[in-house]
Amino acid sequence: MLVVGELINGSRKAISQAITQRDAQTIRKVAREQYQAGAQLLDVNAGTSPDQEIDDLLWLLDVILGELDVPLCIDSPNVYAMEAGLDRAGDRAVMVNSITAQKSRLESFLPLIEAHQSQVVALCMDEGGVPQQAQERYEIAARLVKKLASRGIAPEKIFLDPIVCPVSVDYHAAQVARETLRLIKKHLPQAKTICGLSNISFGLPSRRLLNHNFLSLMLAEGLDAAIIDPTDDALMANLTATQTLMGRDEHCLGYITAHREGKLT
Amino acid sequence: MLVVGELINGSRKAISQAITQRDAQTIRKVAREQYQAGAQLLDVNAGTSPDQEIDDLLWLLDVILGELDVPLCIDSPNVYAMEAGLDRAGDRAVMVNSITAQKSRLESFLPLIEAHQSQVVALCMDEGGVPQQAQERYEIAARLVKKLASRGIAPEKIFLDPIVCPVSVDYHAAQVARETLRLIKKHLPQAKTICGLSNISFGLPSRRLLNHNFLSLMLAEGLDAAIIDPTDDALMANLTATQTLMGRDEHCLGYITAHREGKLT
Repeated sequence: MLVVGELINGSRKAISQAITQRDAQTIRKVAREQYQAGAQLLDVNAGTSPDQEIDDLLWLLDVILGELDVPLCIDSPNVYAMEAGLDRAGDRAVMVNSITAQKSRLESFLPLIEAHQSQVVALCMDEGGVPQQAQERYEIAARLVKKLASRGIAPEKIFLDPIVCPVSVDYHAAQVARETLRLIKKHLPQAKTICGLSNISFGLPSRRLLNHNFLSLMLAEGLDAAIIDPTDDALMANLTATQTLMGRDEHCLGYITAHREGKLT
Repeated sequence: MLVVGELINGSRKAISQAITQRDAQTIRKVAREQYQAGAQLLDVNAGTSPDQEIDDLLWLLDVILGELDVPLCIDSPNVYAMEAGLDRAGDRAVMVNSITAQKSRLESFLPLIEAHQSQVVALCMDEGGVPQQAQERYEIAARLVKKLASRGIAPEKIFLDPIVCPVSVDYHAAQVARETLRLIKKHLPQAKTICGLSNISFGLPSRRLLNHNFLSLMLAEGLDAAIIDPTDDALMANLTATQTLMGRDEHCLGYITAHREGKLT
């Protein structure tokens, strides 16, 4: 499974502060820690202050590109920030996070994705927001894949996000996400899937316990990528264990190696 | 999900010793701890020394019956021990653990199950041993349900065990168990399912990590009962979290209550 490191995000206080103070050392440290912990891609989100986002994003990209040779996932709903970020990062920006089926956002992002031939995170929501039912979310996913195909984007480059809502708000939310994933896997087998975890436990205590178990359940449905905190050792240990249980770890060599490296405690 | 406490088992050193020494206090303590930790049924296995098993089992049953008002699952492949145990425990022995499709064992157990109208754990294996493929295991399950039906045993009383082999021996073993469970759920929806966990991690390090994640995966496939150690707090916390993620915990009240009771740490 593809691990996308989530920690460089302007909505996190430490990162927001580092951005404001142009504290490159903190950003470098967080980037390197995620990479060393097993992130294969780093998400980069500069926060959402409209007049600052482009400058902040470009600064973040320069700092990370100067530190590490790791592919990046540029995370912004702002098409101008995305364009500036893709131009600055060049070949290193391999993923656009994210589009939805909202017409204006979709139409503005499509030329960028086409020009850069990047991978893209596509959220199962449209003008009506996030549907409550899995079937409707899947139908949005199918529309997105079709629309992207019309611009020459292969399904293998599309990471469909079933959208994770908090179980504290709707106690069927995890089931709806799983069912959406199942429908995507069945009917759009060439497309990839991705999701974040932490929203599932919003508003509840012992959040990590829910997040960890939710990752196992989504992996079991065939989730291809997750935007997670790779420095959460227990989460990564669960990921290793679940991969082994999914029959993806020949002769359990990955599990045994992780144990020897002290990663399973 | 039905939690069957696994700890009173003669293959465990502490229990074997307590049986040999007729140390009732240890047995009472282990019984009570499992019950207080959330076991709804206690498995009772007296070990396998042929000339001692009946005496040992009856002693164990007397000790537990005198201590707790909890339903029991009598665990023996020996039909004479099973008969003696069922007679001694009366209404309190609600489950027979176990039968297989091996003809001689099946034929000898059927009259007992019929007479006591007990629930029964039925393992997906026959004269040929445990099939490697899920489809063949499922076919054995279907044969067992049919055979038991012919003796008036309703499918709701049958707990089919897909059989858990170690991933260290066959790294697809967990997938085969999951696939068997899925086939049973699809084609024999009235029957119940059960399994033990710990065999999955036999021969590997960090066994609890695999056991815990395996429980989540099996629950996600609809497992109805598990023979587990209910005093393993982390395992029980995972169980609570997974039930919540399965949409079985209205408004997450079970989760929040477990947190307040300090059971999720």
